[in-house]
Order: sequence, then C-alpha cells, then structure tokens
Amino acid sequence: MSIQSFIPPQRTLMGPGPSDVNPRILSALARPTVGHLDPAFTGMMDEVKSLLQYAFQTENAFTIAVSAPGSAGMEACFVNLLTPEDTVVVCRNGVFGARMIENVQRVGAKLIIVDSPWGRAVDPQQLEDTLKQNPEANFVAFVHAETSTGALSDAKTLCEIARAHDCLTIVDAVTSLGGVELKVDDWGIDAIYSGSQKCLSCVPGLSPVSFSERATDVIKNRKTPVQSWFLDQSLVMGYWSGEGKRSYHHTAPVNSLYALHEALVILQQEGLEQSWARHKAQHQKLAGGLQKLGLEFIVPAAERLPQLNSVYIPKGVDDAAVRNYLLNEYNLEIGAGLGDFAGSAWRIGLMGYAARSENVALCLSALEDALGRFST
Amino acid sequence: MSIQSFIPPQRTLMGPGPSDVNPRILSALARPTVGHLDPAFTGMMDEVKSLLQYAFQTENAFTIAVSAPGSAGMEACFVNLLTPEDTVVVCRNGVFGARMIENVQRVGAKLIIVDSPWGRAVDPQQLEDTLKQNPEANFVAFVHAETSTGALSDAKTLCEIARAHDCLTIVDAVTSLGGVELKVDDWGIDAIYSGSQKCLSCVPGLSPVSFSERATDVIKNRKTPVQSWFLDQSLVMGYWSGEGKRSYHHTAPVNSLYALHEALVILQQEGLEQSWARHKAQHQKLAGGLQKLGLEFIVPAAERLPQLNSVYIPKGVDDAAVRNYLLNEYNLEIGAGLGDFAGSAWRIGLMGYAARSENVALCLSALEDALGRFST
Repeated sequence: MSIQSFIPPQRTLMGPGPSDVNPRILSALARPTVGHLDPAFTGMMDEVKSLLQYAFQTENAFTIAVSAPGSAGMEACFVNLLTPEDTVVVCRNGVFGARMIENVQRVGAKLIIVDSPWGRAVDPQQLEDTLKQNPEANFVAFVHAETSTGALSDAKTLCEIARAHDCLTIVDAVTSLGGVELKVDDWGIDAIYSGSQKCLSCVPGLSPVSFSERATDVIKNRKTPVQSWFLDQSLVMGYWSGEGKRSYHHTAPVNSLYALHEALVILQQEGLEQSWARHKAQHQKLAGGLQKLGLEFIVPAAERLPQLNSVYIPKGVDDAAVRNYLLNEYNLEIGAGLGDFAGSAWRIGLMGYAARSENVALCLSALEDALGRFST
Repeated sequence: MSIQSFIPPQRTLMGPGPSDVNPRILSALARPTVGHLDPAFTGMMDEVKSLLQYAFQTENAFTIAVSAPGSAGMEACFVNLLTPEDTVVVCRNGVFGARMIENVQRVGAKLIIVDSPWGRAVDPQQLEDTLKQNPEANFVAFVHAETSTGALSDAKTLCEIARAHDCLTIVDAVTSLGGVELKVDDWGIDAIYSGSQKCLSCVPGLSPVSFSERATDVIKNRKTPVQSWFLDQSLVMGYWSGEGKRSYHHTAPVNSLYALHEALVILQQEGLEQSWARHKAQHQKLAGGLQKLGLEFIVPAAERLPQLNSVYIPKGVDDAAVRNYLLNEYNLEIGAGLGDFAGSAWRIGLMGYAARSENVALCLSALEDALGRFST
C-alpha cells in the first residue's frame, strides 16, 4: 500500500453547498492549532458568539456553533427541546422538512405533518388551520430555505402564527443564514440552526445554533436527560459559557472555529444587509441568463431563494452528461436534483463568496456550451 | 462592534490533546474545498478508509471517520449497537469510562460497572469475575488508553475474556491509535473509536471508527431505529460505501478529511511499528528527565502510556502559576489534571508530531525553570 498526499482540483462550487470558500477563510483554517482551553482560543470563542448573534440578529445568550455539520445542529435542537410528551407540527416542503420528521420520530414526540408541495413555500394558512385543529401542539418546526427545492418560506409569518398558538418554533436556517433576511429576535424564533458551508462560505463541519430564553428554559427544566450525550446543550454550554470556569465537554474543532470566526468577520465587514442585497443582485443576473438559455425555474418568483436556483432539466438533455462536462471541462460544480427532483432538476447555488459576477458569468457560459453539446 | 481576524499564538502542544499538528497537515487542511460528492473527493474518502484500516490493523469494511469529535464517535458506537434489551459491562478507571456509562444510561441499556482505581489499568480478573456472575451481559466496554490518567489497559486480554463470555467489545482508542500497539482484528475488537487530534496529530473534529462484521450485523438487524439520526451508521454507510451510488446523508467536513488523509499518509510513511517505537523512546527520555526534576508518575511503569505522562504536582507548587508561566513564557501547553486528579496532577502529552526530541527538551527545561519559580 502506498497512498500519496491528496491534491484536490480547484473547483468553482455552485451547487447546494459547500459553496466557494473565501481564500481568507482557508488561510484562517490553516493557522497553528492551539489548545481548546487556551485563553487565546476561548477569547476567540466569545467573539464567535458575538459574531453569530449579529448574523442571526439576536441577543440570545445561548448562541454557539455545534461541533458537527448542520444535521447535527438540527438534531441538537430537536433532542434538547423535545420529550415524548410534546406534540410537534412539522411543515414539510422538501427533503429537510422530512429530516425534521425523522428527528421527531426518534425522540418519540407526537407528530403532526403539514405538507406543502415541493418547490413551494410553506402555506401559512395551512399551518394556522392545523394549529386550530390541534390545540395540544406545543412546537412548530419548518425550514426557512429549503435546500432541496430552492423555496423560501415566510418565517416571520409562520412564527407569528406559532406564537399565537403558544408554540415554540424550531427553524432550519442552514441555507438562509447570511443569504436572505433573517431576524431571530424580531421574528420570535425559539431555536434555529444553520451550517457553515452555505452563505457563510466557510468549510463544512460546523452548525451555528441559537436558542431563545424560552427555549433555554425548556432545556433547563427538562426532567429526563437529553438522549444524546454529545449534543446535550446543557453540558455544551458549560464549555461555551464565558462566565466563570469553562468545563470540559469535548475537544472543540479548533481550526474549523478559526475558519468560522473569519467567515463571520467577513460578513460583519460586508454588513448583513449588503450581503442579502448582493445575493439578490447576483440571483437576478443569473436568473435572467438562465431564462435566456430556456431554463425554467421550479419555484415561483415570489418564493424563490436567491442563493439556490432550481431549474427543470429541459427535455432531451442528459443530466449526468451535462454535470460531468461542467465539472471536467470547467471545474464547475452545480447540484443535482434531490428527493422528488432527483434526475429532473439542477440546483445552482450562489452562496456567500460564490455570489459574484465572475461566477455567474462562468456558469452561464459553461451551461450554454454544455446544453449545446448534450441536448438531443 | 468591530472584531478583527484572529491570529493565534504559535504554541507547542504537550497536553492531553489536541497535540502538535504536523505542518504538512495544516497545509492539506487549507487546500481548496471541493464538493462532498465530487468524484475526486469520494476517491479520497476510499483512501481514508484504507489508511484507517492500516492504522487500526483491521480488514473491517465498516471503517470510516465520524464527522465530529471523539465523543461523537463514542456515542456512535453505543447508540448503534445497544438497545434497552442489552446488558453492558463498562470498565471504569477514569473520566472516559465514566462517559461510557453516561452513554449506556442514555440508551437505557442495563449497566454493570467494573471499577478500577484511577491511574491503574483495568483489572482483567475483575472483568472475568463480573462476567461469570452476570451471564446475561452481552457487551463489554473499556478504555484502552485513559486520557484522564495516563493508564494503558491490556486490550488484548480484556477482549479475550469478553469473547470467552460471548460479549461484543466496545473500545475507546482515542488516545491510543498510532501511539501504542493496537490490533483490532488480532485482538477481536468489535467496535472502536478514536480521535483525530491525539497521536495522529491531526486537527480536532473527526473520530475514526471501525466495526467488525459481528458488530455490523448487530446494527443491520436492529428492530428499532438508532436514537440519533446524525450518528445512525446504517445511513452514514450509504455515503461512505464505495460500492454503487453514494447516498447523501450529511455534508462531509471536506477540509478536515483532507487533513485526516494527510495525517494517515504520514503515519503510513513512518510505519505503524516505528510510530509506536518513537512514542516509547521519547517517553523514556521524558520520564527520565521528569524523575530528575523530582516529579513522580501516577501510573506504575508497566501500565504507563508513553504518549500521556501523568505526574503528581509536588507539594507547595502552584499548579495554575506553573501552567500559565509555561504558556506565557514558553508558549508551551501541558495539561491540567482531570476528574479525580483535578488540581493534583499534570498531564504531559507526547502525541504524534509532539513526540520529538525538541519537544522533550523544551518541556524539561521549561518545567525546571517554572518549578524553581513557583515552589514554596
């Protein structure tokens, strides 16, 4: 056996994530590792908390990064908040709503599903009707930005409805954080999780989360232990809390946190509103170009995510041949369809550092070339 | 708010982990991110599997890296293998045996504890006696290298005893992998987990795991779902499996896996036996020097981990003052005591890239200086 060092190709990442990583973030990632209890490092962790509060637009004290990918952040929200005594309404309009359901089932809580069509936003009226019919429901969960379809749901309205029915909210913001308007405190979100590798343009592997005071109280007042030791946030907070002595829980992924810190510094330097505006502007450029190429969007314009553009694959076009050609000829990655859209859609990401004119230009030209070659 | 980029100090890491990271690994970490389904990347994942098989000395097909730190690897082993119907004997001789107990309790399996003194190896006779008295036990779990005390247990003998009583074994090799002899197949270990940030000298955040065919069968034949969706290895294997189409489970921590790949290439280039010998040789140098400084080892010589040297803090010496001085004056991190040894011991790591003559020399000279300053 003799395996050599791995030198990856230089790709342009315009799939559903990971997105193009800003070179500043890769530099930060490679800085010298320090101990996870080094005062220099724990000081940086406090900054990560502040920067995440800014990104989430929240003053929640319990705002940290879970030391694992977004699906662990999702699970952290569900297993810490829920017990089998709870009733959860999950709004499902794609793969990630379905994953929420899996999480509720593995906790053993009672489950009510509100289904909306794939490629559409969650319907607030349906949620309202469901909550009226099910007064025992005490949690509402939904995906803000469905990465599997490119649909943006109206988180503000959904949270208002949930609150009016005394439900706490659990919100998936994996693809939305940094890319579209998101205001945790203004909207009254109780638990939210995201991912490092989408609009923050950081490397994959971390999941920013934030819990409101109401949610934190639920966790503190649990009578049964959280089923996951690793994701037990009452233990994790003993390490992340800046007050007093930090207790050891697990070894933090030191270098990945350097990278997240840098990603959040970049976001702060650009400004959140400016980042949202940039995603929108680049999306408009891309959408115009895609339409000229004859590609049709799955999601109606008003419910479209700027950072994830899902289009139908035209009839007679070979899905895999196009994507392989883009990858091999242009080093350009676009995303395949997922779930209901496997084989019938492409997902073109404009996330974070990828939401730039040069990426849009490359994507449109390369796609035009590929469509010309692989259409029958 | 204006937070700047974080530039960490350059430390020498001789605590209980993270250990000094080889600069080659930091370079690998910062290579350009590719998609987690990119053929270039999935090809590299296959190499990571082969390299881990070498490091673990196993042919287990189910040998991968969990996308989270070692405590998630621990949890992955327990929650995938156990149900409330099982009876688990956990050998506890430090913090990490206690953590295993937490995991068993959160699964709800029946628990039998074999306690050995902190700072000593697990006593095989005690395990044998316990298994004789509890024929219903079907799992035995123990820590090969107790990071909290520096004790090395005789994994080969403990596994023989477990097998003789028809028990599957779950072994914590977080600190042992790459640093001391470890032979998963020869010793008949059924489930094992480790960490990237110890004797592999990689950045923290990944947990190599391996499951024997017997263990894999247990997972395949489960009648109830694993309580963790993120750690459900039957789903994770759909992504790591090289055969056929890979299914999406979560976004792999791409750059961290570059780093692990490089760490394992380095281990392969050095050779496993050579790495074990290097740890032993550097330990002997360090141990000699520590004894000259009047420091007494906690663990008897025959049960001592070369890669983690626990010594009592001499009477009249200010623990925190010494460690802070080493950190601030020499940029040298050594570990504080943990659990029963908090405040009464230091843990000096010689893990992976840190097991070098220059580190031993620095540590001994710096400690001599510090002891002179902060003894009363």
